[in-house]
Amino acid sequence: MDADLEVRLAALEGRVRELEDMLAIQQIIARYGPAVDSLSQAQVAALWARDGVYDFGAEPLRGAEAVGKLVELSTHRAYVERGCLHSLGNPVITIQGDHAVATGNSRVYIHEGDGWKVERAAANRWELVRDGEGWKVASRTNRLLDGTEDARLVLRSVDRPLK
Amino acid sequence: MDADLEVRLAALEGRVRELEDMLAIQQIIARYGPAVDSLSQAQVAALWARDGVYDFGAEPLRGAEAVGKLVELSTHRAYVERGCLHSLGNPVITIQGDHAVATGNSRVYIHEGDGWKVERAAANRWELVRDGEGWKVASRTNRLLDGTEDARLVLRSVDRPLK
Amino acid sequence: MDADLEVRLAALEGRVRELEDMLAIQQIIARYGPAVDSLSQAQVAALWARDGVYDFGAEPLRGAEAVGKLVELSTHRAYVERGCLHSLGNPVITIQGDHAVATGNSRVYIHEGDGWKVERAAANRWELVRDGEGWKVASRTNRLLDGTEDARLVLRSVDRPLK
Repeated sequence: MDADLEVRLAALEGRVRELEDMLAIQQIIARYGPAVDSLSQAQVAALWARDGVYDFGAEPLRGAEAVGKLVELSTHRAYVERGCLHSLGNPVITIQGDHAVATGNSRVYIHEGDGWKVERAAANRWELVRDGEGWKVASRTNRLLDGTEDARLVLRSVDRPLK
Repeated sequence: MDADLEVRLAALEGRVRELEDMLAIQQIIARYGPAVDSLSQAQVAALWARDGVYDFGAEPLRGAEAVGKLVELSTHRAYVERGCLHSLGNPVITIQGDHAVATGNSRVYIHEGDGWKVERAAANRWELVRDGEGWKVASRTNRLLDGTEDARLVLRSVDRPLK
Repeated sequence: MDADLEVRLAALEGRVRELEDMLAIQQIIARYGPAVDSLSQAQVAALWARDGVYDFGAEPLRGAEAVGKLVELSTHRAYVERGCLHSLGNPVITIQGDHAVATGNSRVYIHEGDGWKVERAAANRWELVRDGEGWKVASRTNRLLDGTEDARLVLRSVDRPLK
């Protein structure tokens, strides 16, 4: 194979891989809502890395299994029984090799009266890692956009490298 | 052309096609909201396959032409006259050759007082087919997230093959 | 390099570039919300072309610097102090060489009582240009979906070429 051709092919392969990574990460975040709103514990757990964390302001959930079990929390069950939608905004994604950060919003809508109430509006930072099975959530930090500084700090870290 | 090169090129062509399919399906779903909120009957109809179906809980609309005519329903006209937004969440997409399933949420916001009320929050399963003109909606099922089991069944079918 | 190979490689390069353009434009729009909700003036300004415009119904902001300064407006500061989320729906994107149009919705949620009120629901037309640094916003038009015809005209222009 001539050298110029090899360079063009390898460049394309790298660009296609980056596009695949972007869409794979979008898809992981898109999967979160349907999984929690249908009480699908295994599907939630499958999104997280084995030792991944979900910190939503209270004591963080540690490990994929613990994160999956959030669908059993009494607050979550009560939401789902009333009627509940978790919607995730399209995130900003930055990829560095086998690590990535995705920053975006989430909203929780709860059925109330003849409509739905916006129960939560939050800022999210997702840190992801690529392993043998593809991308997984290493850590998700979720902070309410209630006027306190915490959520704004999450949003300002959009381009902050992983560490 | 040498064999190794042919393999790499063909692999890239397949991967690029899959990425194009993902984005094309995202775009079809993104087009639904602007079309219904601007009463653009032909634009709504153009998203559906000729014999495509839209089932939103009442008697399903059958055929692209019938789906397009939903913008003439008195309930829909009344929404648009008050001020109305249909917003579709980024879906989970699974592609199998010329068939695809997209699962995601939809919300309808209606202008009320000095803000907007969340009038509907629903789970959606879109089944799509590729034909000569590109991807089209073969069937969309929409169920309110009002605490009943129907919507949760839609969300749980996220990875269920087409049939 | 043989002719058939050159044709296939060039076709792939063009297709990959179009996919990259789509995702780059999605990402620009995804960056808007986190930037305004965290009062990040420079990050907002960086999304616009130097002479870009933001027209949200009142006197348009002209120039990237002026657009960035919207985070200093007293109405915007008051929103952020109460707790505020700008969420942008996944847009319809049409690319023509170095110009693009993205059409989609935006919502503003404001913390109120024990939830969030939907303060704005709007139609948006983003016109983008590619320059040496990548894609930038040449113009954004935002109109409330409050029943008046203006917002519907924005949504109907989804496939209207740039000019």
